[in-house]
Amino acid sequence: MQFSSKLIEEAVEAFSSLPGIGRKTALRLVLHMVQQPGETVDAFASALTKMRSGIQECEQCHNLSDDKLCTVCKDDRRNPQLVCVVENIRDVMAIEETGQYRGRYHVLGGVISPIEGIGPAELNIDSLVGRIDERGIKEVIMAISPTIEGDTTIFYITKQLAALDVKVSTIARGVSFGGELEYADGLTLGRSIVARIPYKVD
Amino acid sequence: MQFSSKLIEEAVEAFSSLPGIGRKTALRLVLHMVQQPGETVDAFASALTKMRSGIQECEQCHNLSDDKLCTVCKDDRRNPQLVCVVENIRDVMAIEETGQYRGRYHVLGGVISPIEGIGPAELNIDSLVGRIDERGIKEVIMAISPTIEGDTTIFYITKQLAALDVKVSTIARGVSFGGELEYADGLTLGRSIVARIPYKVD
Repeated sequence: MQFSSKLIEEAVEAFSSLPGIGRKTALRLVLHMVQQPGETVDAFASALTKMRSGIQECEQCHNLSDDKLCTVCKDDRRNPQLVCVVENIRDVMAIEETGQYRGRYHVLGGVISPIEGIGPAELNIDSLVGRIDERGIKEVIMAISPTIEGDTTIFYITKQLAALDVKVSTIARGVSFGGELEYADGLTLGRSIVARIPYKVD
Repeated sequence: MQFSSKLIEEAVEAFSSLPGIGRKTALRLVLHMVQQPGETVDAFASALTKMRSGIQECEQCHNLSDDKLCTVCKDDRRNPQLVCVVENIRDVMAIEETGQYRGRYHVLGGVISPIEGIGPAELNIDSLVGRIDERGIKEVIMAISPTIEGDTTIFYITKQLAALDVKVSTIARGVSFGGELEYADGLTLGRSIVARIPYKVD
C-alpha cells in the first residue's frame, strides 16, 4: 500500500497492529477518523490512554478494576463464601450477563498449557488457595472451558484444595438449550446421556 | 454488556463508535490493549491525534497530505499536464498501487448524488475547472466508479470543461483480466462487445 501521507501511514500501522485488523480495514478506520472533528479523535485517544494507565487488577480476585477492589468484590450483597473460578475477564462478563450468579469470582488469567509455556506458577492459583484458606470460602465453582487444558487446570486446582474444607463443583455440561439434538457434537451428547439427570415434575 | 470497570467501558464505547466494529470486537481490542505495555498504547493514541491534527487537504488536488502540497503534486517528475479525476483518496491509492500512472490527481470528495444531498457545489469541481484553465492541462482522465451517480458526475464535469481546450477520457471498461467470461455481468459483457477493440499483433 502506498501512502501519500506519512501521518496516515503511521495511523494505519497503529490500527493494523491490533488483532484481527488488516491494513485495508485499518485504512478505512483512519479515513473515517479524518472525517471526524478533531475533538472526537482526541476523546478516542484519551479514552484509551486513560484506560491503560488507570486500569488495575483487583487485588482479591484479579478481575480488571478501576480501584484496588473490583465492583464485584466491593459488593456486600454478594455471597462472599461462594467463588467462581474463571479463565479471564470475558468469562466474568459472560456470567454476569446471565444475572444468575450472586457470588464472587477468581480470575486465573488463563489455563495450564505446557505447549504455550503456561504452568501453574503463571496463573493466579496460589492466591486462590490462600483466599479460600483465609476467608472461609465454602464452595468453589469451576467455570473453565471444557478442553484438555481446562480439565487439567481443574484437576490441578482441585488437588491443591484437597486439604481444605471446601466443596468443588464444575458448571453443568450437556446439550445447549434451544439446540437441535442432531447437531450436538458426539462427545457432548454421549456424556449428557451418561450424566443424565432425574426428571422432576414441579 | 456489563462492565466491572468504567475505564474499560469507555474504551469499548470509543472503539465501537468506529464503522464495522461492534461491542464484542471492541472489547477484544480493549482487552488486547490492557495486555500491552503502557507505552504501546500511548504511541497508538498519539499516532491518531497527531494524524488528525496534522493532516490537511493538498491545496492543489485535495488529496490528503502532510503539507500544503501532497507528495504527488510536489513530484516534478510527474506529468503536470495530465490529471486523473477520482472520488476519494482510496482511489488515488489504488491507482498509485498499479504503478501505471505518472500524472497528477484531482480528488472530488465524492460523486453527485441528489438522494444523499450531494450536488456539484459540495464537490471539488470548481477548483478542477480553475486548475485546468490556469495551468494549461491537456488531458483529464475520469477514473470514477461506473454507477449512475458516477456517470452523472462525469457528464457534469465534461460539460463544465467544454469551453476549455482539454481532452477528456474515461478509464477503459470491460471484462476483468483473469475473470471467467461466463461470470461477468451482462451489462459489462454486452458493452464490452459493442466497444470492442481492434486486435493487434505486436
